[in-house]
Amino acid sequence: MEKLTVIKVGGKIVEEEATLQRLLSDFSKIEGHKVLVHGGGRSATAMATRLGIESKMVNGRRITDAEMLKVVTMVYAGLVNKTIVARLQSMGVNALGLTGADLNYMRSDKRPVKEVDYGFVGDVKEVNSDLLADLIHKGVVPVLAPLTHDKKGNMLNTNADTIAGEAAKALTSHFDVTLMYCFEKSGVLMDENDDNSVIPEITRPLFDKYVKDGIIQGGMIPKLENSFHAISAGVTKVIITKADEIGKNSGTMIH
Amino acid sequence: MEKLTVIKVGGKIVEEEATLQRLLSDFSKIEGHKVLVHGGGRSATAMATRLGIESKMVNGRRITDAEMLKVVTMVYAGLVNKTIVARLQSMGVNALGLTGADLNYMRSDKRPVKEVDYGFVGDVKEVNSDLLADLIHKGVVPVLAPLTHDKKGNMLNTNADTIAGEAAKALTSHFDVTLMYCFEKSGVLMDENDDNSVIPEITRPLFDKYVKDGIIQGGMIPKLENSFHAISAGVTKVIITKADEIGKNSGTMIH
Repeated sequence: MEKLTVIKVGGKIVEEEATLQRLLSDFSKIEGHKVLVHGGGRSATAMATRLGIESKMVNGRRITDAEMLKVVTMVYAGLVNKTIVARLQSMGVNALGLTGADLNYMRSDKRPVKEVDYGFVGDVKEVNSDLLADLIHKGVVPVLAPLTHDKKGNMLNTNADTIAGEAAKALTSHFDVTLMYCFEKSGVLMDENDDNSVIPEITRPLFDKYVKDGIIQGGMIPKLENSFHAISAGVTKVIITKADEIGKNSGTMIH
Repeated sequence: MEKLTVIKVGGKIVEEEATLQRLLSDFSKIEGHKVLVHGGGRSATAMATRLGIESKMVNGRRITDAEMLKVVTMVYAGLVNKTIVARLQSMGVNALGLTGADLNYMRSDKRPVKEVDYGFVGDVKEVNSDLLADLIHKGVVPVLAPLTHDKKGNMLNTNADTIAGEAAKALTSHFDVTLMYCFEKSGVLMDENDDNSVIPEITRPLFDKYVKDGIIQGGMIPKLENSFHAISAGVTKVIITKADEIGKNSGTMIH
C-alpha cells in the first residue's frame, strides 16, 4: 500500500502568520500523500469576543451553543480552512478544505448531556473514506477542519485530535498511514520543563509505567491513549513532535 | 453526454430559513447530476455590521478590503456554505462545499484598479473542471461559494452569477449543461411589475430588440449577456426563473 501521512497541527500554529507560513512551507515539502488537520480555537474565541459572545470552556473543551456553533463554523470552515487552502495552492499543493459534512466523510452524534451539556459537539460515529482515498490517490491533499455533521442537517464541533485520529484509522484500509501530532513541545518529555528530554519511543508497557510514576501526566495522557487506539486500529506509527520539526525524524514515536 | 444542471440561487433565498428549506428540498429532488451555486451578500453585510465594519457598494458590487475579505470568507465559505452542505446531506444529497481555491477549480486575478478600487475581488481566469467532473460522475453534488483564489495565496470575492456561468461553461467539456439562474421574479418580464408577463424564450435578435425598445433594462441586461456568452461557449440552455419554480418547466429560456 502507498504511504500516507496525516498531520494534525494545533490552533496556535495556524493562527499566527509567521508560524503558519513556515508550517505550510514545511508541509508542502513532505513527500507522498498527505492530509492536514487543523484547529482554530484561539481565532474562534477572538471572533466570539468581537461579536459579544462569551466563550465557556469545561475541562479544556468548548461549550458550543447555537451562537458559538455559527462562530466556529465561520472561523474553522471559513477563515482558517480557506486561508490554509489558498496558501497551499500557492505552493503547488492541490488542497481541498473539508468538514465532516462535505462528502459525508465524517458523521457524528451530538454528545449526550451528562454532568455537562457541551451543546453542539459531536462524537464521531462513522467515517466514509472511499471518496477521500480516491481523491488522495489523484494527488489531492485534504485539509480537515475540526467540524463534523450529524446527517440530520446540523454541523457539530469536534476536537481536531479526534478528527485526525479517526481519519487516520479509516484511511488504513487504503494506505500505510503515519499519524503525526504537532504541538508546541519537541515530543513526550521525561521532564516537562526540559525540551531536550524527549522520550524517543513509547510502547504500551512503558506508557503504563510512566503514567504510574507520574512522568506522563495531564493532557498528554489522552493524546497517548488516542495514539495507542490508532495503532490498534491499524495505523502504522504515531509521531508526537514539534510543528517546526515536521518532516524530520524527531519527536516521540508510538508503534 | 450525461446531463448536468447548474443552479444559481440568490443570497436572499439561502439566507432565510423558510425559503432555504424549501429551495433545498426542491433542489434535492432534481434528477441527475447537479451543482448549486449560492450567494450570501445579506449575511455578509449583517456580519460586517456586527463586527463594526462598514459595507461599501459601488454599482451594486461590494468593495472588499482586507477586513471585508475575512468577513466574506467566513460567511460564504463557512456559515452559508456549510449550512447548505449539512442540510443537503440530511436529504441524502452527497454535497461537497467548495471555493475556487479548493482543488484549484477556479483561479482569478485581482481586479485591476481603474475608476474604482474593488479591493480583493477576482475576475475569473481559469477553470479546472476535471476533478470536479470526476466527482460529479461519482454522484457528488458540488456546492459553490462565491469565492475564488489567485493561486498566490489569496482568496478573492467573486460574483455568484459569474461563478455559475464560468463553472457551467467549463463543465460543457464533460456534460450536456443547463444553467439556471433563480431569483425573486418568474423570469424575464415584458412588464417588470407584472409577474405574469414572463417572456418564455429569448433569442439574440429578440434580446437586442427588447433592449432597444426599453423592455429589458437594468440588471437584467448583464444577466442576459452572461446567458448568451454561456450559450456561445457550449451551454445547451439557460433558464431564468423563480427559486420556488426550480425543477418545473417555467421561466425564460435562452438557447
